[in-house]
Amino acid sequence: MKKLKRSARLVEMTQYLTLNPHTLIPLTTFVERYGAAKSSISEDLAIIKEVCEGEETGELLTLAGAAGGVKYIPKYPSHKALPLIEQIGEQLKQPDRMLPGGYYYITDLLGQPGLMNDIGRMFASAFADSDIDCVMTVETKGIPIAYATAAHLNLPVVLVRRDHVVTEGSAVSINYVSGSHKSIHTMTLARRALKERSRVLLVDDFMRAGGTFKGMMDLLHEFDATVAGVGVLVESEDVSNEERLVQDYVSLIRVETVDARSKQMSVKPGNYFDHM
Amino acid sequence: MKKLKRSARLVEMTQYLTLNPHTLIPLTTFVERYGAAKSSISEDLAIIKEVCEGEETGELLTLAGAAGGVKYIPKYPSHKALPLIEQIGEQLKQPDRMLPGGYYYITDLLGQPGLMNDIGRMFASAFADSDIDCVMTVETKGIPIAYATAAHLNLPVVLVRRDHVVTEGSAVSINYVSGSHKSIHTMTLARRALKERSRVLLVDDFMRAGGTFKGMMDLLHEFDATVAGVGVLVESEDVSNEERLVQDYVSLIRVETVDARSKQMSVKPGNYFDHM
Repeated sequence: MKKLKRSARLVEMTQYLTLNPHTLIPLTTFVERYGAAKSSISEDLAIIKEVCEGEETGELLTLAGAAGGVKYIPKYPSHKALPLIEQIGEQLKQPDRMLPGGYYYITDLLGQPGLMNDIGRMFASAFADSDIDCVMTVETKGIPIAYATAAHLNLPVVLVRRDHVVTEGSAVSINYVSGSHKSIHTMTLARRALKERSRVLLVDDFMRAGGTFKGMMDLLHEFDATVAGVGVLVESEDVSNEERLVQDYVSLIRVETVDARSKQMSVKPGNYFDHM
Repeated sequence: MKKLKRSARLVEMTQYLTLNPHTLIPLTTFVERYGAAKSSISEDLAIIKEVCEGEETGELLTLAGAAGGVKYIPKYPSHKALPLIEQIGEQLKQPDRMLPGGYYYITDLLGQPGLMNDIGRMFASAFADSDIDCVMTVETKGIPIAYATAAHLNLPVVLVRRDHVVTEGSAVSINYVSGSHKSIHTMTLARRALKERSRVLLVDDFMRAGGTFKGMMDLLHEFDATVAGVGVLVESEDVSNEERLVQDYVSLIRVETVDARSKQMSVKPGNYFDHM
């Protein structure tokens, strides 16, 4: 136990809450840590709550009663979301990003941990009220998005592999058809990686027809698990409605090839912004 | 500009600094944001500095002069590091982790974003004073460690792939020999993923002889880039000194197979703790 002034306590509590999102922290934790009265701690939390909610950086939920405490729910400020997505959109429009086969080079964007942190925080805001047990993605490019999202939701990440690897032990494999190219792929998940009847948030960096998400859903079925949500960073509109395999998802950015020869594309905010 | 009381300012500044590590923030940023006197902001920063350094959660560097400002350097508290590593060690000792070929199942540990965040913070502490341009790893299991480390160092991640993938554009491939199994593998890096003459921190989840690190070093050579450091979560001691391909590295945990039949292993803290 250590006696701290309110000012120092506020700094420490802010750090503590930020490092422990979506975690119920009993008030007694702070009372004992600082040797302060419960009323003082409540006042501290009221100050933190006011700043977080004023800045829209998060919510601070207070649960009363014996099993009560405080829970920090990180949010992405709505006034920052659209500018961020527009800024990413400007970068996506660079013509040298277009690759053979209708793919886009976005590895440099995915390689920025700060940006991934923002993206994960946006998904964590969108799915803050959902009942989720874990966040799942398929290697490789969706991994940073999955970790950033899961970190803000305080959930584990379940990683589906393209091949069966020796370091995973026994595993379940399925084949799935890539929606747009009609090619057959395999995905594999270690038996011990996912508990049965889990509620799973699926995320990925890019979706056209949604074949990869459909594959993950088939895999969930093998584990008697269910989809709690689907989040994708970039959604391609170069697909017809009949081809689309996933209907219910949250996308942050929508792209469409306007002219493949001149490598021109149109970029719009995703359906994340439809409900805001 | 908004007028805030000191208490609210402290909460906001703490959040801001935590979200922007290893970034030089001019004092005028805070002065303008809060419409407060420079002396008040300096007092705020002194309070934050005292808490961070008291708790060993980080350092707050103040740089004087026209190009000056404040920089938050996240650290992992030394009194928490050994208990964390011992706790991971206890989990590693579970006999069902041992897999054929001398591998260990650690995917569940790597799937915990909070734990990865701690690990990344430990590497960021160890390499805080190094001159580094980016953090590199090979897919797949090292990725969360690379992102967590890079996030705390405010650096981009460069991801080496096992195969050449269509979404990467033109790439450089090399072959390397896995030190312990003497098998030949390929690793590939997109031409545009790494600037020439970069100083690169290499990280991975597991190292025995160090063949994967050696492969990454060969790849760096192709880009005229240099190694700024090597960090590994679990180091296996099941290798002779002659077989070891990498000498200079920071490891957090050391494991050794005591008895492969009874699946017994010994777990010790890594050389990270030798200098503490």
